[in-house]
Amino acid sequence: MVEWLDRAADPGRVHTEGRMVRAAIEDGREEVAGLLGCRTREVVFTSGGTEAVNAAVWGALSVRQGTIAVPAVEHSSVRDASDRAGAVRLLPVDGDGRLRLDALDELLGAGEPVALVHCQWGNHEVGTVQPVAEVVDRSHRAGALVHVDAVQAAGHVPLDLTALGADLVSVSAHKFGGPPGVGALIVRRGLRMAPFIVGGEQERARRGGMENVAGIAGFAVAARAAGGAGPEETTAARTYTAGLRNAALTVPGVVAYGPASPEGRLPHIVCLGVEGVEAEAVLLGLDQAGIAAHSGSACSSESLEPSPVLEAMGVDAQRSLRLSVGWSTQEIDVAAFAATFPAVVARLRALAG
Amino acid sequence: MVEWLDRAADPGRVHTEGRMVRAAIEDGREEVAGLLGCRTREVVFTSGGTEAVNAAVWGALSVRQGTIAVPAVEHSSVRDASDRAGAVRLLPVDGDGRLRLDALDELLGAGEPVALVHCQWGNHEVGTVQPVAEVVDRSHRAGALVHVDAVQAAGHVPLDLTALGADLVSVSAHKFGGPPGVGALIVRRGLRMAPFIVGGEQERARRGGMENVAGIAGFAVAARAAGGAGPEETTAARTYTAGLRNAALTVPGVVAYGPASPEGRLPHIVCLGVEGVEAEAVLLGLDQAGIAAHSGSACSSESLEPSPVLEAMGVDAQRSLRLSVGWSTQEIDVAAFAATFPAVVARLRALAG
Repeated sequence: MVEWLDRAADPGRVHTEGRMVRAAIEDGREEVAGLLGCRTREVVFTSGGTEAVNAAVWGALSVRQGTIAVPAVEHSSVRDASDRAGAVRLLPVDGDGRLRLDALDELLGAGEPVALVHCQWGNHEVGTVQPVAEVVDRSHRAGALVHVDAVQAAGHVPLDLTALGADLVSVSAHKFGGPPGVGALIVRRGLRMAPFIVGGEQERARRGGMENVAGIAGFAVAARAAGGAGPEETTAARTYTAGLRNAALTVPGVVAYGPASPEGRLPHIVCLGVEGVEAEAVLLGLDQAGIAAHSGSACSSESLEPSPVLEAMGVDAQRSLRLSVGWSTQEIDVAAFAATFPAVVARLRALAG
Repeated sequence: MVEWLDRAADPGRVHTEGRMVRAAIEDGREEVAGLLGCRTREVVFTSGGTEAVNAAVWGALSVRQGTIAVPAVEHSSVRDASDRAGAVRLLPVDGDGRLRLDALDELLGAGEPVALVHCQWGNHEVGTVQPVAEVVDRSHRAGALVHVDAVQAAGHVPLDLTALGADLVSVSAHKFGGPPGVGALIVRRGLRMAPFIVGGEQERARRGGMENVAGIAGFAVAARAAGGAGPEETTAARTYTAGLRNAALTVPGVVAYGPASPEGRLPHIVCLGVEGVEAEAVLLGLDQAGIAAHSGSACSSESLEPSPVLEAMGVDAQRSLRLSVGWSTQEIDVAAFAATFPAVVARLRALAG
């Protein structure tokens, strides 16, 4: 990335400096396509996952008319971009946060045209892996487009987007070791739709605006590293999250949300409920011990709103505590949590009387 | 910037890492506001000038109904975002590319509601400085919002946005030494409007998406440098562009577009017409000599379309050659152009027979 901070010429130009930037961007596109198992030309770089989701909804609704199906546990960007674009039908989930396919079938069979079906690959709060292949299959048979929010999944589980066949897939670099401020929307070959950010011919006229070449270079390196890591990294993440989960569950009144089976969850996320204390207080206690966690509710702030994900799962709690591991996590980090968490909870409970 | 590449935690979180990023973003906001002469809270960071322009149009049309006035020399992002948002009235310019205020008066007095009037601070192709203060005054008296595209002007001429009073102003970091992939929309205090990228509470709920903290840090440094440079840098830019212009005009059949008076133009841009040769061929010839120029037409590619700016000015040429100078330009660069350009043109003319 540092190499490109100093050499950020306009890649749309014929001069040498511009051509070098263009080559770097196209190299980055190949790396990202490699990680995701899609075609290079399907990758449209964006300023991140949120813009990618906005562009997916905007584009889909530019070519299809009908309602938008939104599983109740989708990320706020999916919900908000869909609410803006048209009539939304919320789809229920089960107690683990998994989309109820019977509800999707019912909607698709109801005769009302469905423009777009959303289905995240894995949930951002509880980690629940969704039945994306089934959703793509059923939605396509009913003539609807499908958008998969793979922001939490990309770089953590293997993706083969060409095999999946979704029309639109959103990913973000910073969720797996890349920099913030860059992401991509994968647009299935042959799908022509209106761009969201207009005013330039960049990204084959699919996204206007000067390219963030350093960000793309960082995205590419993270994609190469994640793609090259192979199943060992997934196994390591599962081991770490199992360690975090088990350590937390030794404390009375602590529950883990999401599917019981590790295969039902993304490997790198643990979601906990802590009875009798505020999630924010636990966060601060962990932070004092050098452990960065977050409350699972809103993506963008430690919002005081109840979590729509927990609500949709029927969980009787306003907020959760989310822990995630990444490429830099080590056993010592898990041990630090195990040594800290029970004491933090005990202290808070003692304070609460 | 490098400092933040490695420490890009989520600034929306309560943990220490997130709070440090948040502080860096807010420091950046102060620097950018300082350069632009606006309030810190008016600065909304975006992924660049193009997104800022899209957000300006989207937001303005969320709170005002009516037509959109677009001077014919505006950047393609302004034209395209406006075309998408509503009914556009193109406003004519004079032979120097300056907006004809009589045409604006006529539109504003015609009784038809005008939602938004665009006026760029200075033109991206010929450098023409527009009568922005007059446009703001007239538009406000008629009840219209005003968006000023200051992407080319910011960092090159002093801006005092609070004194100007425009409702919306777009700027981009990379146009004055900052990195690509970051910019800002300045939203006048008190103007509440719909966000363009939805799905997160970032930027006080005015722009969803994880912040590009390294980009913002680079934007801030460039803003501080440009703000601290004072009038000497503007004077130096004028000297260099005068040198480029004079060197070019020694070649028969070369014309300079835009106002004759230097005060009528941005200090850092020279726009040339070269009779009898293709602009692209001149670019390639200059590139071989290490001089990065571009054809003035499209922003985003060396498009083969004729330049709408030249067309609006009534110039009988399809395309121009644009040279710009920046903070790193030196006298030796001007001398290199003066030594190269006549030979490049002579060779191309000889080839053309």
